[in-house]
Amino acid sequence: MDFYALVNARYSIRSYKTEPVPEEIIRRILGAARLAPSAANMQPWHFFVVRDEKTRRGLFSNERQAWAAAAPVVLVACSYPDKAWVRSGDGKNHSDVDIAIAMEHIVLAATEEGLGTCWICAFDPALVRSALGLPGEMEPVAMTPLGYAEAEPLPRKRKSLDEIVTWR
Amino acid sequence: MDFYALVNARYSIRSYKTEPVPEEIIRRILGAARLAPSAANMQPWHFFVVRDEKTRRGLFSNERQAWAAAAPVVLVACSYPDKAWVRSGDGKNHSDVDIAIAMEHIVLAATEEGLGTCWICAFDPALVRSALGLPGEMEPVAMTPLGYAEAEPLPRKRKSLDEIVTWR
Repeated sequence: MDFYALVNARYSIRSYKTEPVPEEIIRRILGAARLAPSAANMQPWHFFVVRDEKTRRGLFSNERQAWAAAAPVVLVACSYPDKAWVRSGDGKNHSDVDIAIAMEHIVLAATEEGLGTCWICAFDPALVRSALGLPGEMEPVAMTPLGYAEAEPLPRKRKSLDEIVTWR
Repeated sequence: MDFYALVNARYSIRSYKTEPVPEEIIRRILGAARLAPSAANMQPWHFFVVRDEKTRRGLFSNERQAWAAAAPVVLVACSYPDKAWVRSGDGKNHSDVDIAIAMEHIVLAATEEGLGTCWICAFDPALVRSALGLPGEMEPVAMTPLGYAEAEPLPRKRKSLDEIVTWR
C-alpha cells in the first residue's frame, strides 16, 4: 500500500493470535531493516528473532507484559554504541538514532505484511542481556512482538500539525 | 508504492534541482511524521521547514555542505529531551529514538512523493540553534534537504542479512 496508507494502518497491537509467522515473511521484514540508512553507514545493529517460547518469556519481567511474550515472535533490536558514528564537535553518539530508524523499517514492513507490532522500550536491559546472552558491547534498545493481531487497535491521539511545525 | 519498493527507492541524494516543493506536499510529508509512534506517546518533537535561502545557508558552516543548503527546502527535526519518556530502571532518555522514527517517516513520505532527501546529523548544533533561534530546551537532532533529485544515486552498500540477524 502507499506510504500514507501504511502509516495510517500502523497501530500498537497488544493482543496476538498464536498463529506462527512464516520465516519467509520475517526475512522480508528484516530485509527492510537491512536497507535502513545509518549515520556514516556504520549499520551498528543486530536483530534477534525470538520464536522459542521460554526465551520469549525470559525477555519480560513484568506480568503486565505477558501479552507481548505470548506473540509467536519477539524481535529484539540491539545497537553497538561503540561502532556507531560519533559527532566530532560534541561527541554525540548516534546509535539510538540508527537503531530507531531500522526498527521503524521493521514495524512498517510488518504492517505492509498485515502483521501487528508494538514498540517496547520499557524493559529491563539486564534481563534481556541475560535471556539472549548478549555480549557487553551490544545494547538492547527496542523490542516488538510480531504476529497477527487479535484485537482492534485503540484510537490514536496526536498533537496537531500546527502545534509541531514552524515555517521559515 | 509498496513498502519494500519504497525502501529500495530511498537513497541519500546530494544534488537538488532549484524547483520549489509545493507546500501541500510538504504538509502531507509532515503529516506522516505527526503519526509516528513515540515512547509513551510523548511526541517530544518539533519540525522546522526552512525555505528562506539565507536561513538555509545559516544552518551549515561547512562549505562541503553547500549542496544541502542549495536545496529548495531544508527540514530540521528537533527533540525536547526534557519532555521525552525516560526509563525508570536506568534513566535512559528516549528522545533520540523518538525523533529518529519521526524523521524516517519524513524521509519515506518524501520518497513516496518522488522527492529526494539525505539524513544529515553532521552539523554544528550551536549554529543551527542560532540560525533558527531555538529555545534552550529544543535539541536539533537531524536535518534533511528536500527537493527534486538532480543526480542519480550511488550504489548502496549494506551488510548481509546473515551478518545482522540471529534466530532463537
